[in-house]
Amino acid sequence: MELSERQKKIIEIVKTNEPISGDKIAEQLGLTKPTLRSDLAVLTMTGILDARPKVGYIYSGLPFDPLLQEHLFDVQVDEVMSNPVIIYPHTTIKDATTSLFMYDCGSLYVIDEESKDLIGLVSRKDLLRSLLNNQDLDLAIAIIMTRMPNLVVTYPDMTILEAGSLLSAHEIDSLPVLSRETNQVVGKLSKTKVVQHFIKLGRELKHEQL
Amino acid sequence: MELSERQKKIIEIVKTNEPISGDKIAEQLGLTKPTLRSDLAVLTMTGILDARPKVGYIYSGLPFDPLLQEHLFDVQVDEVMSNPVIIYPHTTIKDATTSLFMYDCGSLYVIDEESKDLIGLVSRKDLLRSLLNNQDLDLAIAIIMTRMPNLVVTYPDMTILEAGSLLSAHEIDSLPVLSRETNQVVGKLSKTKVVQHFIKLGRELKHEQL
Repeated sequence: MELSERQKKIIEIVKTNEPISGDKIAEQLGLTKPTLRSDLAVLTMTGILDARPKVGYIYSGLPFDPLLQEHLFDVQVDEVMSNPVIIYPHTTIKDATTSLFMYDCGSLYVIDEESKDLIGLVSRKDLLRSLLNNQDLDLAIAIIMTRMPNLVVTYPDMTILEAGSLLSAHEIDSLPVLSRETNQVVGKLSKTKVVQHFIKLGRELKHEQL
Repeated sequence: MELSERQKKIIEIVKTNEPISGDKIAEQLGLTKPTLRSDLAVLTMTGILDARPKVGYIYSGLPFDPLLQEHLFDVQVDEVMSNPVIIYPHTTIKDATTSLFMYDCGSLYVIDEESKDLIGLVSRKDLLRSLLNNQDLDLAIAIIMTRMPNLVVTYPDMTILEAGSLLSAHEIDSLPVLSRETNQVVGKLSKTKVVQHFIKLGRELKHEQL
């Protein structure tokens, strides 16, 4: 269901002022009541608003709030991303593993010291493999990291649906978020954050029902 | 928006028979057209159906299909879960690590050989820690696993919203799915599967719009 901008405004007004008469709603919008008639009809017929005689309009608690729905898949990566743990190509395998435990994260991003560009990524699995192979833990992480351009990345203005499709298709733990201008790392989009986003909104949507 | 069962049936009929007249819809439902009048009014006013004069009703492609929406958060764990990789308490750390790479998974579930009950879980992080500590790789996994009752678990009939809340709150990679009757492991709900579920439905919902 696609609500018009005016219908969304009416919902917001009712939410914060309920119960409120049609006249008062019209007043707040600077419109006449007859102008709003069809909007109010749609909103009550769909069960979004409840019209109580002599009381006014009440927000009746949708099972699915169209306003929240828009947010579900269209939210931008920069609203959901978290801070990445950054290391350098010369960081030792031992220090990288320590950082992983210290910050309790699933992957570390490796950047060039001068340009600050993303040049690689190390996952728990990369570290596990190197420890299993009895690799010298004082070796530089550059030796075992996965390098650009073999990394899947995202950008701050991608939607969570686009970025989530990448996470989902490649079955990876996180996506480095790069600035479109500079190619520098500005964040990390982890599977955890994506799950938390959907669950948080899901709980909000369901609470509307209670 | 909460559609009635009859309204959902009307949508399904239009989806598979479009364009279709109101009379034909009524016929398929074994009802009279006047009985359907208010349902058809709601469905056209909300933009779910499009009524074209002399043509009939057409499914107009909602930005958000209420039928899919129901599925979004209410789907049961057993519809989303995958097969877990099972090991035994005497499995060596070395063999467990090999299984992890062999089946490319994030965690292994440890069950009792006789009762088949879940008794523990080993994550990539547990293995990484033990390798870092130079633990003897021939030691039994029972020594390093996280044990019941310190595991967060789910059940086949939980909704993805409930199980996802557990994954989200505990920031863990997967939940063992236990049978309510026997306490035996029947599946694994990974963060990857949860992300894939939301992204898959998100893409279906958005396609409706195109």
